[in-house]
Amino acid sequence: TRELPAGYTMRPIRAADYDRGVLDVLRVLTTVGDIQREEFEAQFNYWFKHNDTYFTLVIVNEFDRVVGVGSAVVERKLIHKCGNVTHIEDIAVARSEQGKKLGLHIIHALTDIGKSQGAYKVILDCSEDNVRFYEKCGFVRVGVEMSLKF
Amino acid sequence: TRELPAGYTMRPIRAADYDRGVLDVLRVLTTVGDIQREEFEAQFNYWFKHNDTYFTLVIVNEFDRVVGVGSAVVERKLIHKCGNVTHIEDIAVARSEQGKKLGLHIIHALTDIGKSQGAYKVILDCSEDNVRFYEKCGFVRVGVEMSLKF
Ligand SMILES: CC(=O)N[C@@H]1[C@@H](O)[C@H](O)[C@@H](COP(=O)(O)O)O[C@@H]1O
Ligand SMILES: CC(=O)N[C@@H]1[C@@H](O)[C@H](O)[C@@H](COP(=O)(O)O)O[C@@H]1O
Repeated sequence: TRELPAGYTMRPIRAADYDRGVLDVLRVLTTVGDIQREEFEAQFNYWFKHNDTYFTLVIVNEFDRVVGVGSAVVERKLIHKCGNVTHIEDIAVARSEQGKKLGLHIIHALTDIGKSQGAYKVILDCSEDNVRFYEKCGFVRVGVEMSLKF
Repeated sequence: TRELPAGYTMRPIRAADYDRGVLDVLRVLTTVGDIQREEFEAQFNYWFKHNDTYFTLVIVNEFDRVVGVGSAVVERKLIHKCGNVTHIEDIAVARSEQGKKLGLHIIHALTDIGKSQGAYKVILDCSEDNVRFYEKCGFVRVGVEMSLKF
């Protein structure tokens, strides 16, 4: 089923989610650091201004606290007849909320966004540990992610 | 050395590269399909309008034919103190021009763009066959690329 458990809602991120714990949810995934409200709002406004490129969804609980988050980022290419690829990025679910398939719901919704944006494929990078989860979401292994850190 | 072989020049892509073979170079990488001049120009104009996000470089030979191409795409995030990740995409070198380290030059230049845009890392996805090449460019394996095709 694609219905969220009772009490949970999925919606686009809002500037006010700064106060609803979205950054703490992202801390489950990786380093977030200390982000002031002004910085958060500036990034939110950049995304909002580029709303053909950035799509970030959150799941909130019945107390309106953010418990899950994920982004779709549309990349426009020349290959595949000037096609686009949608990248799924920065998926995180609060530890205490895991096991409720919230991540799966976010991935399905972001995949739908990719489809509706005309993407010929949706891709994501993950660690070996998360391959099984993304396979359950319908993804298959296709390549190697490589990185150069500054 | 970071100097190109004699006769070759690297520069940002131009709309007129449609007539200089840029799409044929991309055909070395993957499916490109039949792209009309108008479609190409529309995508070029989109990139140009979003020139804080899309950076595409070409290498041309002494006859002003495109022999290599590659893109850097800047993605703005919340994680890492509202950091950005620069994605290296769609790297291709004409078959007859391979072995001259043109690909390496493109990767270095795109990596420099990522750095100058303030990226905390540059990432790319590739097939197992190309891992050795990207290691020579300074990249290391970090994860698994997964895909869902439409
Ligand atoms: C599907 C998914 O959520 N993948 C994430 C990616 O989006 C995120 O940006 C990165 C952060 O790791 P980092 O802190 O090492 O850059 O981790 C994972 O690869
Ligand atoms: C570093 C590099 O150039 N990686 C490319 C990627 O940028 C390109 O978009 C894709 C096309 O493959 P596709 O036709 O299967 O989408 O191939 C490779 O993964």
